[in-house]
Amino acid sequence: MTIAIVGIGLIGGSLAITLKENGFAQSIIGVDNQQENLNKALRRKIIDESASLEEAIQRSDILILAVPVDVMLEILPHVLDEIDTQVVMDVGSTKEKLLEHIQSHSNRRRFVATHPMAGTEFSGVEAAIPNLFDHKYTVICNAQDSDTAAVELVEKMYRSIPMKITYLQAKEHDIHTAYVSHISHISSFALALTVLEKEKDEDRIFELASSGFSSTVRLAKSSPDTWIPIFRQNRDNLLDVLDEHINTLSKFRSLLIKRNFEEFYQLIVEANHIKKVLK
Amino acid sequence: MTIAIVGIGLIGGSLAITLKENGFAQSIIGVDNQQENLNKALRRKIIDESASLEEAIQRSDILILAVPVDVMLEILPHVLDEIDTQVVMDVGSTKEKLLEHIQSHSNRRRFVATHPMAGTEFSGVEAAIPNLFDHKYTVICNAQDSDTAAVELVEKMYRSIPMKITYLQAKEHDIHTAYVSHISHISSFALALTVLEKEKDEDRIFELASSGFSSTVRLAKSSPDTWIPIFRQNRDNLLDVLDEHINTLSKFRSLLIKRNFEEFYQLIVEANHIKKVLK
Repeated sequence: MTIAIVGIGLIGGSLAITLKENGFAQSIIGVDNQQENLNKALRRKIIDESASLEEAIQRSDILILAVPVDVMLEILPHVLDEIDTQVVMDVGSTKEKLLEHIQSHSNRRRFVATHPMAGTEFSGVEAAIPNLFDHKYTVICNAQDSDTAAVELVEKMYRSIPMKITYLQAKEHDIHTAYVSHISHISSFALALTVLEKEKDEDRIFELASSGFSSTVRLAKSSPDTWIPIFRQNRDNLLDVLDEHINTLSKFRSLLIKRNFEEFYQLIVEANHIKKVLK
Repeated sequence: MTIAIVGIGLIGGSLAITLKENGFAQSIIGVDNQQENLNKALRRKIIDESASLEEAIQRSDILILAVPVDVMLEILPHVLDEIDTQVVMDVGSTKEKLLEHIQSHSNRRRFVATHPMAGTEFSGVEAAIPNLFDHKYTVICNAQDSDTAAVELVEKMYRSIPMKITYLQAKEHDIHTAYVSHISHISSFALALTVLEKEKDEDRIFELASSGFSSTVRLAKSSPDTWIPIFRQNRDNLLDVLDEHINTLSKFRSLLIKRNFEEFYQLIVEANHIKKVLK
C-alpha cells in the first residue's frame, strides 16, 4: 500500500511515522508546499520520498489530506478531479463546510471524511511523534456518502494504529468539537492574553506558574495558522458555546460580587462531575 | 527533627512523604480532624504517629499547617498561643487576610508564611504522592516579620526537598496567585459546567474529548472545600482578573461576530508569547 500524505505537519507527520512503523503503508509519499518541511521529513525518514501533488495522486492508493482546513477547501475538489480508484481522506477539525463544498462532485464517494481526536499544542513536522493516536477515538463523518469499500479501507487503516472509531454526521461533529475541543483553545488563548496583559513581569509568571496554570494555558501555544481557519469555519457553533461560557463566568462573577459562596460551592460540586467523563 | 503536619491531605501528606524520605524529619506526627484520614496515613506509613493538636504542639520542632485557608484563620492564632520555641509555618494559597489576622500576636515572629507552588486536581490523603514539589518554587511571604532563625529553618527544609525559593509581600503574593493559579481554576470550573450543560450525552464527551480538552478542564476536578475558601479570601483580586478574562473572551466574541479573523489572528500570535514563560 502506498500512502500519500499532503501536509507533513504535526498530524500528517505523526500519521506517517505510525503507518510506516506498523506496516500498514509500504511506502509514504510526502507532499508539502514548503520544501523545507519535506527536507526535514526526509532527513528524519518520516517519509520515503517527496513528490508534487499531481505525481502523488497518480502513485498512491490512499491520499491523506492533513492541511489547515482553509487549504482543505481549496485542494479537495482539485484532488477529487484527478483521482480514479484511489481513496481520499481528510483529518481536519471541521466538516460541515467541507462536505457541502464537494457534495455534488462526481468522485464524492471516493472521499472519506475523518477526524482523529488527538493532537498537541505544537505544530510543524518537528512536532511529529510516534504513538500520538494510540487508543484514541477517530470520527468518520457522513459515512453513508462514501463508497463502502472506501470506508472499510479507512477503518482498517485507523484500526491498525490502533484507534477506536465513532460515527457522526458533519453537523453534529462540528457542534460536538466546538464543545470538546475548539472552546478549550479559545479559553486557553484568552487566559494567556489575560495573564500576559496583567503580569508584565514574565520572570514572576515563570516562578509562580503552577502545573495547574501550565496545563490550562498549554493550548495557547497552538498555531494561529491551524486554528483561525477552524474558528472561521465553525464560527456559528463556536459563538454558541462561547456565549454559554461567558455566561457561566459572569455567573461566577456575580456570585463573587454578592459573596454568595454557598451557591458557588454547589456549582463547583456540579463541575466536579466532569470526573466521570474524563480519564 | 520532629515535624507535626496539621491536615494530612494532598499537600500535607505529600510533604510528609518527602521530608521523611529525604531524612529532614526523623519523625512525622500527623494531626487531622478526620480520624479516617489519620488511619489511612498510618496504614500507608505516611506519618509515624497521630496525635491531638495540643500534643503535637508540645512534641514538635516545626508545625506545618496544611489545612484549607478558612480553617487556617481559625487555628493559627490558637497554635501561636500555645507555642514556645517551635517554628510554625503554613502552606496555604492566600496570605493577606491570614497575616493581617495575626499581625499583633506576641508569637508572630515564630510564624513563617509559605506557599509551595505545586498541587494536583486530587485531594485527600489518598492523593499524597512523592516528588510533588521537586524543583518547583515556594514563596515565603513577609519574611521581615518572622525571626531570622525561623525563616532560615524553613528555607533549609524547602531546600532539602529540593525546592527553589522566592520572596514576596502578602499583598503581591495574593495578586500574582490570582493570575497564575486561581483564575485557572475558575476557568476550568466554568468550562466543565459549560460542556456538561450543553453535552448531555456524556459518552460522546468521553469519546470526543481530546487531550487538549482534558488538560484544560483537569482542574475542574478540584475540591470545593479547598477552593471556595481561597476564592472567598482572594475575592477582590479574583474579581479583577475575572473581569479582565471576561473582557478578553468578549473581545474574541465580538471579532467572531464581525468575522474579523485578521485581528483574531494577531491576538493568537500575542497569546503564543506564553511559550516564553512556560516550560
